[in-house]
Amino acid sequence: MKDDVRLSTPVIDINMAHVIMLTEQEIISKSDGASLLRALLNLRKSTLDTSAEDVHMAVEEAVLNQTGKEVGGNLHIAKSRNDQVATALRMSLRQTLIITMLLVAEMRTSLCNSAKKHLKTVILEYTHLQPAQPVTYAHYLLYHVDTLGRDLQRLAQNYARVNFSPLGAGALATTSFPIDRDRVAQLLGFDAVLENSIDAVGSRDFITETMATLTHVELNLSRLAEDLIIWSSPDFGVVELPDDFTSTSSIMPQKKNPEILEVIRARASNVLGNFVATASAIKSLPSTYNLDFQEITPKLWEATETVNSSLRMLTLLIPRIKVNGDISAKNNQSFAAATELANILVREHKIPFRSAHKAVGALVKSLIETNKTFRDLTPELLNKSVKDTLGTNISTLAKDLESIMDPIKIVEAHFVKGGPAPREVKRAISMREKETVCAKTDISKLAERLKEAESGLEEAAKSCSTKNGRLKNPKL
Amino acid sequence: MKDDVRLSTPVIDINMAHVIMLTEQEIISKSDGASLLRALLNLRKSTLDTSAEDVHMAVEEAVLNQTGKEVGGNLHIAKSRNDQVATALRMSLRQTLIITMLLVAEMRTSLCNSAKKHLKTVILEYTHLQPAQPVTYAHYLLYHVDTLGRDLQRLAQNYARVNFSPLGAGALATTSFPIDRDRVAQLLGFDAVLENSIDAVGSRDFITETMATLTHVELNLSRLAEDLIIWSSPDFGVVELPDDFTSTSSIMPQKKNPEILEVIRARASNVLGNFVATASAIKSLPSTYNLDFQEITPKLWEATETVNSSLRMLTLLIPRIKVNGDISAKNNQSFAAATELANILVREHKIPFRSAHKAVGALVKSLIETNKTFRDLTPELLNKSVKDTLGTNISTLAKDLESIMDPIKIVEAHFVKGGPAPREVKRAISMREKETVCAKTDISKLAERLKEAESGLEEAAKSCSTKNGRLKNPKL
Amino acid sequence: MKDDVRLSTPVIDINMAHVIMLTEQEIISKSDGASLLRALLNLRKSTLDTSAEDVHMAVEEAVLNQTGKEVGGNLHIAKSRNDQVATALRMSLRQTLIITMLLVAEMRTSLCNSAKKHLKTVILEYTHLQPAQPVTYAHYLLYHVDTLGRDLQRLAQNYARVNFSPLGAGALATTSFPIDRDRVAQLLGFDAVLENSIDAVGSRDFITETMATLTHVELNLSRLAEDLIIWSSPDFGVVELPDDFTSTSSIMPQKKNPEILEVIRARASNVLGNFVATASAIKSLPSTYNLDFQEITPKLWEATETVNSSLRMLTLLIPRIKVNGDISAKNNQSFAAATELANILVREHKIPFRSAHKAVGALVKSLIETNKTFRDLTPELLNKSVKDTLGTNISTLAKDLESIMDPIKIVEAHFVKGGPAPREVKRAISMREKETVCAKTDISKLAERLKEAESGLEEAAKSCSTKNGRLKNPKL
Amino acid sequence: MKDDVRLSTPVIDINMAHVIMLTEQEIISKSDGASLLRALLNLRKSTLDTSAEDVHMAVEEAVLNQTGKEVGGNLHIAKSRNDQVATALRMSLRQTLIITMLLVAEMRTSLCNSAKKHLKTVILEYTHLQPAQPVTYAHYLLYHVDTLGRDLQRLAQNYARVNFSPLGAGALATTSFPIDRDRVAQLLGFDAVLENSIDAVGSRDFITETMATLTHVELNLSRLAEDLIIWSSPDFGVVELPDDFTSTSSIMPQKKNPEILEVIRARASNVLGNFVATASAIKSLPSTYNLDFQEITPKLWEATETVNSSLRMLTLLIPRIKVNGDISAKNNQSFAAATELANILVREHKIPFRSAHKAVGALVKSLIETNKTFRDLTPELLNKSVKDTLGTNISTLAKDLESIMDPIKIVEAHFVKGGPAPREVKRAISMREKETVCAKTDISKLAERLKEAESGLEEAAKSCSTKNGRLKNPKL
Repeated sequence: MKDDVRLSTPVIDINMAHVIMLTEQEIISKSDGASLLRALLNLRKSTLDTSAEDVHMAVEEAVLNQTGKEVGGNLHIAKSRNDQVATALRMSLRQTLIITMLLVAEMRTSLCNSAKKHLKTVILEYTHLQPAQPVTYAHYLLYHVDTLGRDLQRLAQNYARVNFSPLGAGALATTSFPIDRDRVAQLLGFDAVLENSIDAVGSRDFITETMATLTHVELNLSRLAEDLIIWSSPDFGVVELPDDFTSTSSIMPQKKNPEILEVIRARASNVLGNFVATASAIKSLPSTYNLDFQEITPKLWEATETVNSSLRMLTLLIPRIKVNGDISAKNNQSFAAATELANILVREHKIPFRSAHKAVGALVKSLIETNKTFRDLTPELLNKSVKDTLGTNISTLAKDLESIMDPIKIVEAHFVKGGPAPREVKRAISMREKETVCAKTDISKLAERLKEAESGLEEAAKSCSTKNGRLKNPKL
Repeated sequence: MKDDVRLSTPVIDINMAHVIMLTEQEIISKSDGASLLRALLNLRKSTLDTSAEDVHMAVEEAVLNQTGKEVGGNLHIAKSRNDQVATALRMSLRQTLIITMLLVAEMRTSLCNSAKKHLKTVILEYTHLQPAQPVTYAHYLLYHVDTLGRDLQRLAQNYARVNFSPLGAGALATTSFPIDRDRVAQLLGFDAVLENSIDAVGSRDFITETMATLTHVELNLSRLAEDLIIWSSPDFGVVELPDDFTSTSSIMPQKKNPEILEVIRARASNVLGNFVATASAIKSLPSTYNLDFQEITPKLWEATETVNSSLRMLTLLIPRIKVNGDISAKNNQSFAAATELANILVREHKIPFRSAHKAVGALVKSLIETNKTFRDLTPELLNKSVKDTLGTNISTLAKDLESIMDPIKIVEAHFVKGGPAPREVKRAISMREKETVCAKTDISKLAERLKEAESGLEEAAKSCSTKNGRLKNPKL
Repeated sequence: MKDDVRLSTPVIDINMAHVIMLTEQEIISKSDGASLLRALLNLRKSTLDTSAEDVHMAVEEAVLNQTGKEVGGNLHIAKSRNDQVATALRMSLRQTLIITMLLVAEMRTSLCNSAKKHLKTVILEYTHLQPAQPVTYAHYLLYHVDTLGRDLQRLAQNYARVNFSPLGAGALATTSFPIDRDRVAQLLGFDAVLENSIDAVGSRDFITETMATLTHVELNLSRLAEDLIIWSSPDFGVVELPDDFTSTSSIMPQKKNPEILEVIRARASNVLGNFVATASAIKSLPSTYNLDFQEITPKLWEATETVNSSLRMLTLLIPRIKVNGDISAKNNQSFAAATELANILVREHKIPFRSAHKAVGALVKSLIETNKTFRDLTPELLNKSVKDTLGTNISTLAKDLESIMDPIKIVEAHFVKGGPAPREVKRAISMREKETVCAKTDISKLAERLKEAESGLEEAAKSCSTKNGRLKNPKL
Repeated sequence: MKDDVRLSTPVIDINMAHVIMLTEQEIISKSDGASLLRALLNLRKSTLDTSAEDVHMAVEEAVLNQTGKEVGGNLHIAKSRNDQVATALRMSLRQTLIITMLLVAEMRTSLCNSAKKHLKTVILEYTHLQPAQPVTYAHYLLYHVDTLGRDLQRLAQNYARVNFSPLGAGALATTSFPIDRDRVAQLLGFDAVLENSIDAVGSRDFITETMATLTHVELNLSRLAEDLIIWSSPDFGVVELPDDFTSTSSIMPQKKNPEILEVIRARASNVLGNFVATASAIKSLPSTYNLDFQEITPKLWEATETVNSSLRMLTLLIPRIKVNGDISAKNNQSFAAATELANILVREHKIPFRSAHKAVGALVKSLIETNKTFRDLTPELLNKSVKDTLGTNISTLAKDLESIMDPIKIVEAHFVKGGPAPREVKRAISMREKETVCAKTDISKLAERLKEAESGLEEAAKSCSTKNGRLKNPKL
């Protein structure tokens, strides 16, 4: 029963919608329908008895207790546990997915807010964990805004595939009663009926897809966590994490073990493991319902909770990260401006690109051999290197070199769509903010639609129930 | 180099589009641009030298050979291997995804065609591998049409996320040259630019997503394979597989080992394994480019080939499966009509649903104990069972019982949306056929757009190349 | 704290052993040691406060409360949470592994007991789910005895690698106090010290190995479950499951949904998923302690519980399975005796093996075409087939054919080591029973050794504590 | 056929051993046996025709060509493709496992050799990627010697489970011919017969176990790779990798992308993925032979090759890594000596451990706040901190503080079993070297035994073949 608790509202709702439809279709009498709905409305306000085998039995027994066998014995006409389970799972999952989508949108907002404050905070980016080129922290954060944007899109498309109603599929073959599956789907806020009845009770790709989608989210988050873990190591010293997101030891108070981030890093593996458990359980399972399905549901709920908590933690963390933007020394030492220097040779001195690279490469090598950095670069050294390597005479000006010693100037020069130049990043942020506002509105609409369906269902149930139904035993 | 072969056309195309843009943006001279394009157009018609380190070096070297260093040394201005690799992978992958989508659509057509021939072929469906209720083979096939429908939708949405251009992101920070990323994206048939440059070179969710999507396809196929393996076992005897899809032994010619289906069953695990390899490699990788990426690409190509070959094999197999539709004996023996008999008691005799179940349950039990089946059922036996169990007197008619002894009548009575009744299945097939026609058109349009981009690129390249470019060494 | 409960006894024991050693090494005074041990012995008899951060803090705080800061502040000399966690995990795990080993041994006994009752119960075995050859049910059960035998061996070797003591490794570098790691290891019942301190705190291959070993067990059990699920399907009708291991529906009382077996089948995937979560979390983690480790422990405990419950359920199920041993009809119908018939031709009529196969193949084909089975086989039909196919005249006797019509005779003829002949299976069972008795003794010895260490530790602690230690606050 | 090439020698050997046994058991005549063996001996010296369906057919056909049908038709008496495949796989796998074991032993030797050169090379070890305590590089390398030691043990135990002979199990039920399975096992160098025939043809835990064992190896290697990747980042600057194990760019010659290590890091995921593919394919497969088995073999060979190449690369890399042992500045800056300072307070000044930690913590905090490091520590500062925090007056001496400013002194003080003190590490290395010499001898013995079996088989075959066997067509 434990995991079933989250299914209790869906199961009661399903029974209400089903009874309304049965009454409308005249499969059961108006008065029987009214009694059943009264009993179900009562049930909605109380807590379920957890001693029953599962939530499905608990609801049916509670109704039977109130209505007596003659009436209550008809609650299950034209449906089966198989379609009811599949429907309840989808109802619970769509609520969870809405939360996840909101959390992703919220984290994007948090990242954008931080980015706005760091348009000119230069950091050194690495490839292969070797220093490569200066960008801004804002530009870095936008990278995660964009991966989360795709995650959000995947979640929304996933949601759309979840929001179909299996109800009416029965055990596997629908029923010979003249039910109206569309009406039930509409009362329960589904977009449509999941038609084929074997598919409706026997497919679980809505679960495997969700777990894959969640895995994609967590993989992206684990990469953010890894960057921050490495960057907050004193050797890197790029970022500083707030105390309440780290642990320390009484004796080494300067130590900031990035525990929350380590947990998030590990949890990507947890979600992946849950996906594997599910996919491997589903693989080559005979069609229709098998009890193996029961084993995969806890894995789904665990995965959704893991992802939601990771998103929550990171959204709280982002605004509190301190960034060390003073990278000029590192920039010069790591020769991260080498590419830009070569670009200057190409642009100003018309040296072919590959030759410029060769000349700068030789220059860097000679600087390293003499224990120098770009800080020590002079026009003479550069000119000599070009002459020695390519045989070409050029005369660089000191001001050209200035631009490569100041990382922010390099960054500003990278004014290309999607590049790190502050002007461009500002534009990009503004666009993403608009996008996120729209996304939040869309998600709210989905939530709204579910709430409307919920209250519509309640109203319809109340309206049907007041007519002439009587409960033998109105107390639960 | 081996796996790089599939990237050679994309890499040449990327270089052509890049050079056209460089010329248009006046980053390189028209004449240099023309020479480079001539060299690239030559290259397109020949085979690449596989002795180079990789396809990227092979192309650049071949161009250098033709144009000389002065001109060829500029081919790589304002781009990097990091963005070029990401772009080439996406170009190759979108071609592969189009093939997969077409194959899924084709398999849906094949299933619909078979379904049309089996609207009234009754089979017994199982839950938990225990006989449950009669449906038709057409209804069963439609279940797979519908799972494949969702797979197709996932593939199309996946494709849309793949078709973005990373080019211009450079090593990770774009470039200080005034490049036009949109122009390159357009020339290469991309829907848009993948903006953020760190994201563009460092994200591989387009690969993990594709592998998850392919896993979903294979999981569905493995379940179809499992059904057919079990159903073709002589003990089940529901279907018969054609000889060329099975193996046999010289001594037991009646043995039909369902080898192709066993292979398809196992391959779902292969694709899942490839997904795990990829996801686990990506998990907590630092941002931007790491060589770990190189290890995951072969897993991607292997997965696409596995899925495509599974789809091809099943599409050929479907029309050649023989179905044994004579299930009346089995139907009676397995009491698969029990639910329908209970429904009759509810409908005709106003017995509450749960009581009807109880009465029929008692009836079935007594029949089993006397070694009888539903074939031996009489109105008297039924009436007695109702009387004994519920204390209610009813008088059933022999004709009511007839309907439950004839499986096709039961199936016809299940006339509900998504149910097995032939009229409903016919409607459903016709709807899916229309859907599939539309889907095929959409996929063709995607393919068409790529071809148009391809020829547009070639034309643009030729037009630019003829102006005044000269090759030093026009032979490759 | 929840999962920490299972670590509370180990953590208290570790502290006791550590304090005894500190006293013996004169790192702390005898009287301080006595007070600490009194406090720890008190703690052992009570329940831990679960409001502390974790079990390690809870124990230290409870000791501090009793002894005061001056004395209690020395509890943690020369150890660290890092080595304490690793030690406690290994202590808890070795207890769990002993249970698993006993359960595997118990299940082997259960299988042997059933096998002894079914030495002559013939069943038809399949390859590729196609009928192949008759064996006995006893022979089939022995197959699982043997896979479990290897599982038991793996578990025992795994156990031996778990039973090493990391204590004394400190945070990662041991300590500058003159501790005696061997003494602590001995007091805690470990076989030896896990020497290298970086290895001791930072390796988790004892967890990944255990989870792989458990995966192997579950994979074997899932195959047993699958056989029984298929064989209990009425179409196969080979075995019948007891009611309390299946579920049914009120309306179809003959339906026996093999729910327990389906759950066991699915759980192999769960354990695999847990292994993937763990392996992927460990992969490329920096050396020494990272908090990612904390996330993998719950996966370990979940896996051990899953495996233990699967073993328990199957051990209860095995003796209650009913087997349908009357397979002569099926045997003839499926021509499962074909190989044996060919062997007769080779043996009695000196026909080359491949030719014999060809002749029998032709015979089977002609029987099928005339709707006959081996029941209808006559010497004339066989002689004709040999003549037609090979041009050879032979004269078979009716009595030769009898042997292939009686499955038990075929089985008896397969009198080869490891074969199904009852005499051989009897020998094999007897050997396995001896083996299992030895194995159980070995496992008991391991358990005994742990218990002895436990009481030795208690005694040593009591003896040290009575000397002159006083508690400031003797109530917890 | 491609992957079958590695099975061709095993398959020929199997046939030879089988024929020798058939002759000895008088199942076939001496002269037929002689002809068959001649044909097989011929085959051994030539290359197999790859146009056959698989290696099993290729061998049988080649024999038939030489001997004619009468004799050659008996090659397959009393065996089946099912047992032959399982036997050949095990024969090929044991050769591969011997190579892996040798490579692991070799890498251990390489690590020990490097360790001997770095007994006093101090490095700073981290926990949570935060600087923690000084150890030596030798001590660090020994950690990997020890994880590989457990890997070697697992491989050896795994090997012992692989080296069993399934031959004689037939299709699944052995045979009615009086074969001698022990004799065949002995001729093929197996330790014993894999008895139960269903187990022998239908179990693949020898493959899943091997893949799990290989995963454990790769997980350990991936952690070594990760350490080296991080440590070779200039920000850490702990190690320097040789040029031929890194890639660079023409323009940034100082950049050393650790490509080989990144590949090794990713390959742990590959092997894990292959394990998942295999385990998921095996999960809930019906007993005996299913063609799914065929799909898992390539995964096995791929995994063995991946692991072997990773081991080879790292063994070459280890001796060529340069270590930066000058860590005093870092040591002081990171307060990595804090624990040792607290230990001094406990030892020399009898301050309780937790109080000492508190006082040192306060000291470190105040140093940080005044921008100082341990380099600036004076007895006065320490005494003041103890007084302020604990109210205790102590008088430290300057020489006490010296010991914590010199990392090697701290390391030397950690003289505990498994600790980093050079004397202890020296002892540990010497012990591991002896162990590894023994291990190499053991592995060589295994290899020797296989070679002896091989030549024994050849001799026996030659001796039988010369008697009186004739080949119809002695050319292949």
